[in-house]
Amino acid sequence: MTYDRMNQAELEAALAAERERYDAFLRAKLSLNMARGKPSRKQLDQVSDILTALTDCDLCVDEGIDSRNYGELFGLPSARRYWAEILGCRENQTFVGGSSSLTMMYEVLNFAWNHGLKNSVRPWRQEEKVKFLCPTPGYDRHFRVTQFLGAELIPVPMTACGPDMDRVEELVKDPAVKGIWCVPKYSNPQGITYSAETVERMAALRCAAPDFVIMWDNAYCIHEFKGGYVEFPDIISLCAEKGNPDMVYEFASTSKVTFPGAGFSVVASSEENIRHLGKLMGNMMICFDKVNQLRHVKYLKNKEHTLEIMKRHAAFLEPKFRVVAEALNREIAPCGFGSWTDPVGGYFVCMDTMPGTAKRALQLCGEAGVTMTPAGATHPYGIDPEDKTIRIAPSFPPVEELETAMQVFCCCVKIAALEKRTGRI
Amino acid sequence: MTYDRMNQAELEAALAAERERYDAFLRAKLSLNMARGKPSRKQLDQVSDILTALTDCDLCVDEGIDSRNYGELFGLPSARRYWAEILGCRENQTFVGGSSSLTMMYEVLNFAWNHGLKNSVRPWRQEEKVKFLCPTPGYDRHFRVTQFLGAELIPVPMTACGPDMDRVEELVKDPAVKGIWCVPKYSNPQGITYSAETVERMAALRCAAPDFVIMWDNAYCIHEFKGGYVEFPDIISLCAEKGNPDMVYEFASTSKVTFPGAGFSVVASSEENIRHLGKLMGNMMICFDKVNQLRHVKYLKNKEHTLEIMKRHAAFLEPKFRVVAEALNREIAPCGFGSWTDPVGGYFVCMDTMPGTAKRALQLCGEAGVTMTPAGATHPYGIDPEDKTIRIAPSFPPVEELETAMQVFCCCVKIAALEKRTGRI
Repeated sequence: MTYDRMNQAELEAALAAERERYDAFLRAKLSLNMARGKPSRKQLDQVSDILTALTDCDLCVDEGIDSRNYGELFGLPSARRYWAEILGCRENQTFVGGSSSLTMMYEVLNFAWNHGLKNSVRPWRQEEKVKFLCPTPGYDRHFRVTQFLGAELIPVPMTACGPDMDRVEELVKDPAVKGIWCVPKYSNPQGITYSAETVERMAALRCAAPDFVIMWDNAYCIHEFKGGYVEFPDIISLCAEKGNPDMVYEFASTSKVTFPGAGFSVVASSEENIRHLGKLMGNMMICFDKVNQLRHVKYLKNKEHTLEIMKRHAAFLEPKFRVVAEALNREIAPCGFGSWTDPVGGYFVCMDTMPGTAKRALQLCGEAGVTMTPAGATHPYGIDPEDKTIRIAPSFPPVEELETAMQVFCCCVKIAALEKRTGRI
Repeated sequence: MTYDRMNQAELEAALAAERERYDAFLRAKLSLNMARGKPSRKQLDQVSDILTALTDCDLCVDEGIDSRNYGELFGLPSARRYWAEILGCRENQTFVGGSSSLTMMYEVLNFAWNHGLKNSVRPWRQEEKVKFLCPTPGYDRHFRVTQFLGAELIPVPMTACGPDMDRVEELVKDPAVKGIWCVPKYSNPQGITYSAETVERMAALRCAAPDFVIMWDNAYCIHEFKGGYVEFPDIISLCAEKGNPDMVYEFASTSKVTFPGAGFSVVASSEENIRHLGKLMGNMMICFDKVNQLRHVKYLKNKEHTLEIMKRHAAFLEPKFRVVAEALNREIAPCGFGSWTDPVGGYFVCMDTMPGTAKRALQLCGEAGVTMTPAGATHPYGIDPEDKTIRIAPSFPPVEELETAMQVFCCCVKIAALEKRTGRI
């Protein structure tokens, strides 16, 4: 019977039953983690051949460039070509960086703040106000970068096709609105892929700010775990076609291809933006780690071979996402509340539980030794006004542990919902 | 005969002789580079065993931490201990970063600009003016970072013992003076090591700005090429002793220990500053490349073993610096103008040629295919008011090439001096 059809006595009985189950979990003294999108140890082991991909002095010299010495601010040419093939853009539209694409995003916006971008009238810090659009639910670390720099975060609702474009098209008429965060494929946390129409409308935006920037974080561009690789459009040429050649900066990394925090990253944009970015970057560094760039190119080779490696990751990830879906369908669906996504790529499942109960549910999880992404993290300023959105990150624990963790999680979600129904919270 | 004793006819004859020699160099169509402090190919080859220092999955887990996954913003504990031993400070006074210490310097100052340091009253960008002390001659990329952020660069003369401390003590009474660049050991470009008195006075500075910062770039802290390792004081505890616990940020990297641009770097400061730095860095990244940190710790092991490796670098560098000294002593000293340093560590020799002739000498070098650091690069804003300082970077070319390059260089320096003497420039 669904909770909304239960009378008070039935709700109390259901709550008592879940509490008894919860007490058993407490006694088991668990320590399980579904907090962040971390690949598992086994995933890392099966790509660790990269550690021997570059062991010879002579191999370190690539197309006449010694990767072990200073130089090549924009990245090794072979590394730039690698990313151009993955993203479907051109080599001179890429700037290959270090191990963190998040840092590259920060640097671009930090430059905008202190110096302005190519089409800026003035540095953003000289603007009276800077607003940044945050499709919500979204990625906490994106929101945090813009909050840290001093922007006002404007939530934009996510739909099943991506950000609500009616709303976006309206908001960009405000010249204080300087940009938008986007995860176009397998969005964090819902796993939504923007529809072709959403992508087209995004590329064709008519913005009041001449230096409006789409932060196109293509973090999961080749990260299918079910059903095979899905092609994606080249946002850079699409923006150019629509008369917005300099509007988009695309980001990607191998953090979930090889090693998180020890892979290599790319920024892609118009050739002129990239040339301008190089001038700015040249003030803060001589070059990024080209040995690691070359190590990756030797190991990953090209798009085709990289997609083969992604299939091996998929074999580890797919069963984990199945555990999540099965637990939610088995335990929560019959109770008649909540909804959740069922993605085929990326690293997350997004659940909307009963409004007003997300925080309480995650508090219960924490006390039972199951660490989750904090409630609210998916929203600007960490505040979920309806207190309902929960991000589930099932990639790290082994399947057996994940099954236990999901049992605890479902139990906690139900207790919180029953506490709400019975007027306790 | 020295140039100042020659009459006009003798000067003309000397000039004609040097020009004839120069024409022969031109015909040889040389392509030689003494522009930047790059280790030579042979130096890189002899440390390339680092490429096989971490090839096994199990070795990637260090003290229970998987270096291949997210986490440990402050760096691997073993990497922090490694740097603490090198610098003579404590583990919790270190923040181990990525492949570029210059980037770490930029980030610290960029944070100061946008957010303020721990003891700042307000972000530096909100100050009416920010002035930064630049011991001159100095490192162009240091000066450029502060110029890029928007500081006014204030030159401070260098003496044989380090920056002119009388001048520094006077200048820091101005609250707009927010910091100073220092390369305390084998300074770039002179190769001067600060005297104990200079270091003590630096640590004891009484600054009007509560957030005055010493940017202590200890880039060459273990980089002797002649005479063996020289101990250096721990500037962090020295500043604490003098009542300035938060005043200094020390930087170092392995760019000239293993691979330039592909090593690992450190920021060291008071424990509170490092904790504060971590909070700021947490907004722009998850972690630095810990696989490369661990690869370095496995290869370099500890201070003793690292100093052994530095001796192997020294064996390549010492003959090159000898070529420079011998060429200058043989060719320039008898002419009775100019002076130059004779360092025992670092990567540079600094020459003061006849005032008003540095640019012309380097122009002649360039036309003969010998690339040098541009004249003026050693001075704030790239302007050497006396047009006399030249940085010589002999590390990259093989010894035979360097001998030719130094012949060309000396010839060009003499032509420029003779052109000056004969009233042509």
